[in-house]
Amino acid sequence: MAKLLKTGKAGRPQGVTDHGLQTRKHLYTTALRLMSRYGYESVTLRMLAEKAGVSPGLLYKHFRSKRDIVMTFYDELSVELAQKARKLHTGNWSSRCMQALRLSMRVLTPHRKLLIGLIPILVSHSDDGLFASTTRYSRARVVGFFRLAVCKADDSPGARQADALARWFYMLHLSIILWWLLDRSTQQQATRKLLSLIEALLPMFDLGFQWPGMERKLLSADRLLQQALLGTT
Amino acid sequence: MAKLLKTGKAGRPQGVTDHGLQTRKHLYTTALRLMSRYGYESVTLRMLAEKAGVSPGLLYKHFRSKRDIVMTFYDELSVELAQKARKLHTGNWSSRCMQALRLSMRVLTPHRKLLIGLIPILVSHSDDGLFASTTRYSRARVVGFFRLAVCKADDSPGARQADALARWFYMLHLSIILWWLLDRSTQQQATRKLLSLIEALLPMFDLGFQWPGMERKLLSADRLLQQALLGTT
Repeated sequence: MAKLLKTGKAGRPQGVTDHGLQTRKHLYTTALRLMSRYGYESVTLRMLAEKAGVSPGLLYKHFRSKRDIVMTFYDELSVELAQKARKLHTGNWSSRCMQALRLSMRVLTPHRKLLIGLIPILVSHSDDGLFASTTRYSRARVVGFFRLAVCKADDSPGARQADALARWFYMLHLSIILWWLLDRSTQQQATRKLLSLIEALLPMFDLGFQWPGMERKLLSADRLLQQALLGTT
Repeated sequence: MAKLLKTGKAGRPQGVTDHGLQTRKHLYTTALRLMSRYGYESVTLRMLAEKAGVSPGLLYKHFRSKRDIVMTFYDELSVELAQKARKLHTGNWSSRCMQALRLSMRVLTPHRKLLIGLIPILVSHSDDGLFASTTRYSRARVVGFFRLAVCKADDSPGARQADALARWFYMLHLSIILWWLLDRSTQQQATRKLLSLIEALLPMFDLGFQWPGMERKLLSADRLLQQALLGTT
């Protein structure tokens, strides 16, 4: 909740008091709880104000739309993840990326139900989508987290290759999140096992990078990823 | 449109005449056009009946809900794809799977706008979702298409491994469709280039399957995929 309290900006008027920040926090957590229970679409600002026990006017001072709340949610998650960067142990890039991936899953786990309700927005061309220009700061923060995992590894490749690896690992991480949100196995145990399997396969991929022409292919793949989805992050 | 006319069943009363089938086809194509233009959510059955120039009662005899139409859409696409199976040239499994993937993209291309509107339903826990039990016949047909690509290949592995490869290729194919639907590059050229890149990388994956323990890992991955998403297809 650090970002929300210290530097959260979306919809927050200047000169807000401690009490104002507490109200904002209360509204934010109430909104997440309601959206998690009833689904994003069903929650209205009116319902939120009522359940939080504040006037619609006061709510509007903090969050002007549900979109504001979702943007704050992305922001919070990405900041929480970025703060975990120092928890990454030394090692090679693949083990550090796996650690990063698991840390991200741990940050998201308490929000699984809410995230399921947000899939239609996350996976879309909407302004709140995963790849929208308005969400680029949160996205850049998470890509930056994976970049750090690669760059500070014992076997870190050159900067350009590290960027490409980080962006593709970010995509792998999004794919796994989508699998996990749709996973019907008991307590999503198939996702946990999938992570172990990916971990066991990564040395093979690492070897693959030694193949002639692979570096060039990785950089091509990175350009395509930016053209199609990520833009320049 | 073969399936819709000859064997389409969803919502179709018994003993329908040729005229009835023509009406059904007209309603179906009008529905796709409207959903493609206004988005799935915005189209109502009332609007559909009106635009198609039929009474709500007659519409109801053919399609009882928008869901019926979406189910028919899945059905049609999967049948159209399955019919293309004989177009697959001889070759190894990876080249045949790439052909299968490109054939599927060609079948879907005219429907891109409609499919973008359907993402919230496709990628969800809903009854019309990609992995729902109600859509299992369409899903099984597409997985079967990839199974054929693998099984009839020059280098086809054993039946169990072929099943696993086919299911994972089906998943790769879904991921590429999602990329393509979200692809912002001009005329989705980044998707076409991605397909070429994957094609160039497949020999490396093929080599990877020779690694000790890889067969066991492939079968584990297949079990996880079934547990988490696909069920038994």
